[in-house]
Amino acid sequence: MSYFQSVGKIAYEGKGSDNPLAFKHYNPQEKVLGKTMEEHMRFAVAYWHTFTGAGADPFGVGTAVRAWDTMSEMDKAKARVEANFEFLEKLGVPYYCFHDRDVAPEGETLQETNQNLDTIVELLKQNMKSSGKKLLWNTANMFTNPRFVHGAGTSSNADVYAYAAAQVKKGLEVGKELGAENYVFWGGREGYETLLNTDMEMELDNLARLYRMALDYAREIGFDAQFLIEPKPKEPSKHQYDFDAATTISFLQKYDLAGHFKLNLEANHATLAGHTFEHELRTAAINGMLGSLDANQGDLLLGWDTDEFPTDLYATTLTMYELLRAGGIGRGGINFDAKVRRGSFEDVDLFYAHIAGMDSFAWGLKAAAKMVESKFFDTIIGERYGSYGSGIGEEIVSGKATLKSLEQYALQNNPIKNISGRQERIKQQINEIIYSV
Amino acid sequence: MSYFQSVGKIAYEGKGSDNPLAFKHYNPQEKVLGKTMEEHMRFAVAYWHTFTGAGADPFGVGTAVRAWDTMSEMDKAKARVEANFEFLEKLGVPYYCFHDRDVAPEGETLQETNQNLDTIVELLKQNMKSSGKKLLWNTANMFTNPRFVHGAGTSSNADVYAYAAAQVKKGLEVGKELGAENYVFWGGREGYETLLNTDMEMELDNLARLYRMALDYAREIGFDAQFLIEPKPKEPSKHQYDFDAATTISFLQKYDLAGHFKLNLEANHATLAGHTFEHELRTAAINGMLGSLDANQGDLLLGWDTDEFPTDLYATTLTMYELLRAGGIGRGGINFDAKVRRGSFEDVDLFYAHIAGMDSFAWGLKAAAKMVESKFFDTIIGERYGSYGSGIGEEIVSGKATLKSLEQYALQNNPIKNISGRQERIKQQINEIIYSV
Amino acid sequence: MSYFQSVGKIAYEGKGSDNPLAFKHYNPQEKVLGKTMEEHMRFAVAYWHTFTGAGADPFGVGTAVRAWDTMSEMDKAKARVEANFEFLEKLGVPYYCFHDRDVAPEGETLQETNQNLDTIVELLKQNMKSSGKKLLWNTANMFTNPRFVHGAGTSSNADVYAYAAAQVKKGLEVGKELGAENYVFWGGREGYETLLNTDMEMELDNLARLYRMALDYAREIGFDAQFLIEPKPKEPSKHQYDFDAATTISFLQKYDLAGHFKLNLEANHATLAGHTFEHELRTAAINGMLGSLDANQGDLLLGWDTDEFPTDLYATTLTMYELLRAGGIGRGGINFDAKVRRGSFEDVDLFYAHIAGMDSFAWGLKAAAKMVESKFFDTIIGERYGSYGSGIGEEIVSGKATLKSLEQYALQNNPIKNISGRQERIKQQINEIIYSV
Amino acid sequence: MSYFQSVGKIAYEGKGSDNPLAFKHYNPQEKVLGKTMEEHMRFAVAYWHTFTGAGADPFGVGTAVRAWDTMSEMDKAKARVEANFEFLEKLGVPYYCFHDRDVAPEGETLQETNQNLDTIVELLKQNMKSSGKKLLWNTANMFTNPRFVHGAGTSSNADVYAYAAAQVKKGLEVGKELGAENYVFWGGREGYETLLNTDMEMELDNLARLYRMALDYAREIGFDAQFLIEPKPKEPSKHQYDFDAATTISFLQKYDLAGHFKLNLEANHATLAGHTFEHELRTAAINGMLGSLDANQGDLLLGWDTDEFPTDLYATTLTMYELLRAGGIGRGGINFDAKVRRGSFEDVDLFYAHIAGMDSFAWGLKAAAKMVESKFFDTIIGERYGSYGSGIGEEIVSGKATLKSLEQYALQNNPIKNISGRQERIKQQINEIIYSV
Repeated sequence: MSYFQSVGKIAYEGKGSDNPLAFKHYNPQEKVLGKTMEEHMRFAVAYWHTFTGAGADPFGVGTAVRAWDTMSEMDKAKARVEANFEFLEKLGVPYYCFHDRDVAPEGETLQETNQNLDTIVELLKQNMKSSGKKLLWNTANMFTNPRFVHGAGTSSNADVYAYAAAQVKKGLEVGKELGAENYVFWGGREGYETLLNTDMEMELDNLARLYRMALDYAREIGFDAQFLIEPKPKEPSKHQYDFDAATTISFLQKYDLAGHFKLNLEANHATLAGHTFEHELRTAAINGMLGSLDANQGDLLLGWDTDEFPTDLYATTLTMYELLRAGGIGRGGINFDAKVRRGSFEDVDLFYAHIAGMDSFAWGLKAAAKMVESKFFDTIIGERYGSYGSGIGEEIVSGKATLKSLEQYALQNNPIKNISGRQERIKQQINEIIYSV
Repeated sequence: MSYFQSVGKIAYEGKGSDNPLAFKHYNPQEKVLGKTMEEHMRFAVAYWHTFTGAGADPFGVGTAVRAWDTMSEMDKAKARVEANFEFLEKLGVPYYCFHDRDVAPEGETLQETNQNLDTIVELLKQNMKSSGKKLLWNTANMFTNPRFVHGAGTSSNADVYAYAAAQVKKGLEVGKELGAENYVFWGGREGYETLLNTDMEMELDNLARLYRMALDYAREIGFDAQFLIEPKPKEPSKHQYDFDAATTISFLQKYDLAGHFKLNLEANHATLAGHTFEHELRTAAINGMLGSLDANQGDLLLGWDTDEFPTDLYATTLTMYELLRAGGIGRGGINFDAKVRRGSFEDVDLFYAHIAGMDSFAWGLKAAAKMVESKFFDTIIGERYGSYGSGIGEEIVSGKATLKSLEQYALQNNPIKNISGRQERIKQQINEIIYSV
Repeated sequence: MSYFQSVGKIAYEGKGSDNPLAFKHYNPQEKVLGKTMEEHMRFAVAYWHTFTGAGADPFGVGTAVRAWDTMSEMDKAKARVEANFEFLEKLGVPYYCFHDRDVAPEGETLQETNQNLDTIVELLKQNMKSSGKKLLWNTANMFTNPRFVHGAGTSSNADVYAYAAAQVKKGLEVGKELGAENYVFWGGREGYETLLNTDMEMELDNLARLYRMALDYAREIGFDAQFLIEPKPKEPSKHQYDFDAATTISFLQKYDLAGHFKLNLEANHATLAGHTFEHELRTAAINGMLGSLDANQGDLLLGWDTDEFPTDLYATTLTMYELLRAGGIGRGGINFDAKVRRGSFEDVDLFYAHIAGMDSFAWGLKAAAKMVESKFFDTIIGERYGSYGSGIGEEIVSGKATLKSLEQYALQNNPIKNISGRQERIKQQINEIIYSV
Repeated sequence: MSYFQSVGKIAYEGKGSDNPLAFKHYNPQEKVLGKTMEEHMRFAVAYWHTFTGAGADPFGVGTAVRAWDTMSEMDKAKARVEANFEFLEKLGVPYYCFHDRDVAPEGETLQETNQNLDTIVELLKQNMKSSGKKLLWNTANMFTNPRFVHGAGTSSNADVYAYAAAQVKKGLEVGKELGAENYVFWGGREGYETLLNTDMEMELDNLARLYRMALDYAREIGFDAQFLIEPKPKEPSKHQYDFDAATTISFLQKYDLAGHFKLNLEANHATLAGHTFEHELRTAAINGMLGSLDANQGDLLLGWDTDEFPTDLYATTLTMYELLRAGGIGRGGINFDAKVRRGSFEDVDLFYAHIAGMDSFAWGLKAAAKMVESKFFDTIIGERYGSYGSGIGEEIVSGKATLKSLEQYALQNNPIKNISGRQERIKQQINEIIYSV
C-alpha cells in the first residue's frame, strides 16, 4: 500500500519552478567538482523524526496525523518500515538512519524486545534489497526508557550498564546484518544532572570501557562500520560528557580511543555549545575526526535543540565548503536530524521539509564549489598569512625559531604593520557568491 | 607614603563583628583539616583590576578616584607598586599577580618598553624583599596593543608573532627574577573573529610552537615555575582557542604538551563556556591539570565577563570542596581576578571587596571541611555507585566484562531497580551545612 | 487509604534537627513582623507537578513510581485527589492549585470531558470541606491537546478559540464552585512559532476579547476571584505574548484591562526573560500588579524552564523582601510550581522537595524581616538618594524644575560629586544577615 | 582637503560588477513600489562609529588608522566634520546622526563644553548648507563621562540629573539649529547595576519627568522633531529600563507619554532582549510606535552588542517587509549604528562596510517589494485566519460572542480540524524570493 499516495516521485525541475513538490536545486546526477550531487551529500532520512516522532513537546502531545496512528505497536512498526522506503524512493534519498527503538517497540523483557527488533530488521532487510536503499548508520536508544534515568554507559547502576552493553551488542549485530556504513553513539543520558551526586571520573572511565568492548565485539563479528560519537552539550542532561568536538576528542585521546572513532556533528548541537557549525566541522577536520553530519538548524534565540530543517543558505554553503575543504564526507553522509514543526502536522509537510533541506544543501554545494573553483578563501588566507611563507615567518613555521632569535628580530623590527581582516567586504562577497548560483 | 591612610591593618574579629574593615571568617593562622587557612587558599591580589583598572566599560571611561590619577606614566607605575605592597600588607594577602603592561608602561620601542619594565621590576623586587610578599604568577599582556589585533601567538602576521615571542621571553626572565611560582598564558587575542579569514590549523600549530619555545627557554634559564594556561570561551575574540578546560586539554594532548602545563581556571570563564565552575575544576582534577584559580563570579543573566568579587557562598563552598578533594591547590593559589563595580569607585571599596571575597572563601573552606569530615559527599557517592563494588559491577570496573558477558547478565536480570538521586534533599542539606559554619 | 503511609505529619523541629522529614525553619504559627509564617506565605502545592507529572522530558518517558500508575484514568484521577489532600495534610500546606486537565481526564467530547471534571470537582469539594484545605487558584490547560497547536485564545482557527472560551467558562464555574481565591491565565500556546505565518495584531486583539468575556462571565456568575496572568517569554512557543511583567502590563494597558488583572510571577520565567525574579516582583509592585507567586528556581546555564524546587537562600530572601516591601502577597500565595528532578522518582522525594522549598522560604522570610527591622535597605536607599530630599532634588521630584532651571543650576554647579554604590559591601552584609537567622 | 582621497564617488554598477567600490543593488533613484530607493530607506551614517570610534574593546585600545589621529581635540573635531560630509557625499547617503560628545570634546566646565559644541555645530551647519546633507537625529551622550556612573535622568544624584537636563536642553537647541528630523533618547546609564541599592520607582518617575520637561522645552522653542526612545535590554547597565519595545511602550503608557514618542529600534538590541528584529518592528507598528531604525546585526553566539554591519539578507528582507507593511519609515530613517570590526582598521573598510549594508538593504527592499506585489504573506495569513471572516469567527472578532455563545458552539462542533502552518515550505519560498531579485 502507499502511505503518501498523493505525492509522486519528486523530480528536479530547476530554478523558477513553482511546483512545491519538485527540486529547484537538487539534481542528484548533476556533476559538481567531478562528483555527482548524490555522491557529495549522501543524504539520509532520520527514522525517528520522520516516522516515529509526532510533534510532542514538553507542554503538549503529538499533533502529526499519520496513517498508522491507530494501529497496534507491531503493526505500526511494520507500517513505518513501508512508509520509510516509499518516502526514500519518492524523494530519491539513498540512505536512512535509526535507533533500535525507533523501528521496533520494546517488549516486557530484553528477549522479547530483541525478538521485536529481529522481526523488523528482517523486514528492513527485504525492503533494502528490493529498493537498493542503504543504512547510513544505526544506533541504540539508551535514553527514553526510565531505566536510563541515571545514564546508560555512565549509569550509577551496574545493572543498567549491563543492559546498555547488551543493547549495544545487539545494535552492532543489527548494523552488520543491514550493512550499516557507520555505527553511532549518542549519549543522551551520558552526563549528569548535578555534580553533587556524581562520580564523574568513574562514569567517564566506564564509558571508555563500553566503547572498548564495542570495538572488540565489532572486530569479533567482522562489523567494519566507521564508529561515530555525536557531541551535544546539554539536554536532556544538564551537562553531557560529549559536550562538543574538542571535548569528545579530549576524551578519546585520554582513553587512547582516538584512532577508532570519528565524530557525527550536528548543527544545532554546535550552537547549543556556543559554536558555529563551521567551527565544529573545522575542529573535527584538523584533528582527522570528521565523520558524518546531522543536518538541521537551531533557533539561537531559544535555549534548546529545535532540530529545524536546514534552510539557511549561509549555513549550508559554509557547511559544504568545510566538507569540500576536508576532502568530502567519506563514509559518512548528511542525515536530516530535523523534525517538522509541531504546527506542520500533515504528511505533505514531511516532503516540503526534506525538499527544503535538500535544495538548500544543493544550493550550498554549488556556492561552495564556486568558492573552491575561484580560490575565494584560498586567496584570502594566502594573502593574510603571507608573512609565514618566507623570512622570519618561515623560521617560525619550520620550527627553527627560538624565543631568542625572535626577540632579536623583534627588537629591530619597528613599527609592525598589520593588514585589515576585511570581514565586511568578505561577507558582501559571500552574498554575491551564494546568489550567483 | 601611604595610599590608603584611612585604613589600618585588617584583623580577624569573628562572626558578629560589624566593623566593615575586619574579617569575620578569614583567620589566616586558623587550622582547618591540618593546614592554616592561609596555606589552603594562598590568596593573591590581581594588579590589573586593583591598581591599573579604573572602571572603564564599553560605554564609559574610568570612574575610580586614585591618588595617582594625575601623575606621569612612570610615576604612576611607581606609585602603584607602593600601593600594591601597602594593600597586600593591610589585607594580609601573601601573593600578587601581574601582566607586564600592568606594572610598567610601554615605550616607543621594545627596548624602551623593556627598560621601563626593568625599572619597575627592580622596585617590585625591593618591595618583595622588605615585605615578604610573593609573586604567585606573572604573564604577558599580548592583547591591549593594536599590534595584536589579529592575535599574538596566533597572529596572521609573523612580525607580531616574533614580537609576542620576545615579550614571552622577557616575561620568563622577569618571572625568574621575581621568583614567580607560576607563569600564566592567557590568550586574549588567541582565537578568531571570523572563521572566514582564518587558518585555524596553522594558528593552533603556531601557538603550540610558542609554548614549546617558552618551555625550552624557561629550562635554559632555570626558571622552574609551573606553566599555566587560562581557558576562556569568548571575549575579546568571538571564539577563543582555549575555550574551556576540556578544549585546552585536547590541545595540549594533540601537541604533546600535556605534561608541561596545568590550568588556571576562572569562575566567570567557566560560566561563559556554559559550565559550572565545579565542573571545570573537576575536569581539570581528573586529568591531573588543576593548577591555580582566578576567583570571581559572573552574572549569568549577562553575556560577558563581569569579573565580580566572589560572594556567593554556594560557589565558594563547592570550589573549596573541589580543591580539598583534589588534595589542595599545590603551587597555585586563589587570585582575585575581580574588579570592583564601576559604581564602587572609592579606594575603600577595594578593601570591602577583597574582604568580602576572602571572607566568602574562608566560609566556603570551613563548610567544605565539614563536608570532608562528615564524609557528606563520600557517603552519597558510595551509596549511589555501590553496585560497582561487587558482582557484575566489579567485573565492569576491573575490565573483565565483555558485551557478551554483560548481555548474558542482562538477559536474566529483570526488572532493573534504580535508586533516587535525591537532588532536592542534598541541596537542603548543603544549606544546612553552609550555615552551620 | 494512605498513599504516603511511611510518612507521618511533618513537624517543626528547629535548626539542627537531622530528621529529613521535619521542618528546620518553617514553623507555621511563628510570628514574624506581626503575622504568622503561614499567613505571610500562603503556600500551595501544584497538582500537576506533584500528582500528574511523572518526570518525562523531551528524551524520555516518566520515571516516577506512584501507587496509581496502573489504574484506569478515572480511578487515577480519584486516587490523585486523595493523595493531594493527604499530602497537604502531612505537610501542613493550606492551599493547592490545578489546571482542569490535571485533575480529570479528557473524554471523547467536551460534554464527556466536563462530566469527568464535574465528578472530580465534587470529590475535591468534599475533601476540601473535611480537610479545611483551600484552592489558591485554578486554571484551564489550553496547551496539551493537539487542538491547541496554533494557540487557544490566539488560535488562527476560530473553532479552537470557541473551544478555549468554553473551557474558560467551565473553569470559572469550577473556581466559583470550589471557592478559588484567584483564577489564572497562563498562555502556553498564546504566542507564535514564527512571525512568518502570524497575524500578531489580530491574535492579541482576540486574546483581549477573551479576557473581557471572562471578566463579564465571572461578574455574571458572581465569581469574585482575583484574575491573574502569568508571564513567560518562550517555551513552548518561540515567542509567548506574555513575555514578562512589563510586556503583560503593556498589553493590559493597551486594551484597558489593567484594573482587572494582576500578575502571577514565576521565578524561572523571570530568568528565561533575562531578569532576576526580584526585578519582576518590583516591576509588578510599582505598577500595582503584584498578584501571586509561582515559586521555583531555574538553572541559568540551561535555556529552558527547569522548574526546580527553590533552595537558593539569596533568592528566597530577596523574594520575601519584595513581598514585605509591597505589603504582602494579598489574595495570592506562594505556589510551588516546581517538580522533583527526573532522578528523584520516589514518593518521599516529593516530601523532601517541598520541605526544602518551604524551609528555604521560611529562612528567607526571617532574613527579610531582619532587613525590614534593621532598615537595611531603607538606609542604603535613603543615603543614596538623599539629594532628592531638598534643594534642586526636591524641585525635580515635585515637578517644579524645568530644563531651563536645571541648566541654570548645572552651569554653576561644578564639579559634581558622586558617592560609591557599595555593591560589594552590601553583598557581604547580605551574607551576614541571611546566615544570622 | 580630502580624507578619503583614494575613493571616488560610489556609483551603482548593477549585479555582477566586481568593483568593490560600487553598488550592486542600491540604485538611489530606482523606483520600487512607487517610491525611490532613497525615499524608502533614508539612510544615515552614525557619526560615533564611523568618525569617533576607533575599534577599542574591553581588552584593547583602538586600532583604526585615521588622518586625524595625532591632531589636538578641537582640530580632530573639525577634521571629522569634513570627513563626515566627504563620506556622505561619496556614498550618496543623505543623512547623518550624532551624540553631542561625538562631534565636539568636553571642556572643563559645561560652559566650555557648550562653546566647543557651538563651534562645531556652526561648522556642521555650513557643511549641511553647501552639501544638502541632512541631520536624521541628534542626541545627548549621557553615559561616557564618569559623572553618569549612577545614571543621568535616573541618577541617584540630583546634581547629575540637573546636568543631564542641561545637556538635553542644549541637545534640543542644537537639533533645532540643524533642522534635525528626530531627537533620540538612548538611556545608556538609565537602568541599574543591582536592585540592592536602587529605588526603581523613583528613578522611573524621574525619567518620565525629564521626558516631560524635554517635550515642554521643545514646544517652547518650536523644535518639532519626532521624539524617539531607543530600547536596549542590558549593557552597559545590568538592567536597562527601556528593555525592549513592549517595556518602553508600557513605560510611556504609564506616564501618559505615549502620544509624544515613537521608538528607535535596533536590530542587535532586539536580539539581546531575546527577540527577532521583526518582532520588535511589528510590536512597535501595531502600537503606532514605529519611529526609526538603527541598522546593524548581532552575533547570537555572543552575549553583547556587536553592532556589525547588516549583511544578512534574511534579516534585511524581513525588516524591509515590516517597513512596507507599516506604510514606510515616515520621518525616521535607517541609520547604520554599526561599526567596522576591530580588524578592519583601514579607511577603505568604512566604505566596504557601508556598501555592504546599503546593498543588503536594497536587496532586502526589492525582495520585500516582491512579497508585497505577489501578496505572498497576505495569502498565507488570509488562508490561515480565514475562519475569522464569517460565522463564529466573525462573531468573535466583532465582539458579539460571549463565553456562553462560544460554549454552545463548541459543544456541538466536534471534532475540530486545524490546518498546517507550513513553516518549512514558507522558508523555502523565502529563499526563492530573495534570490530571484
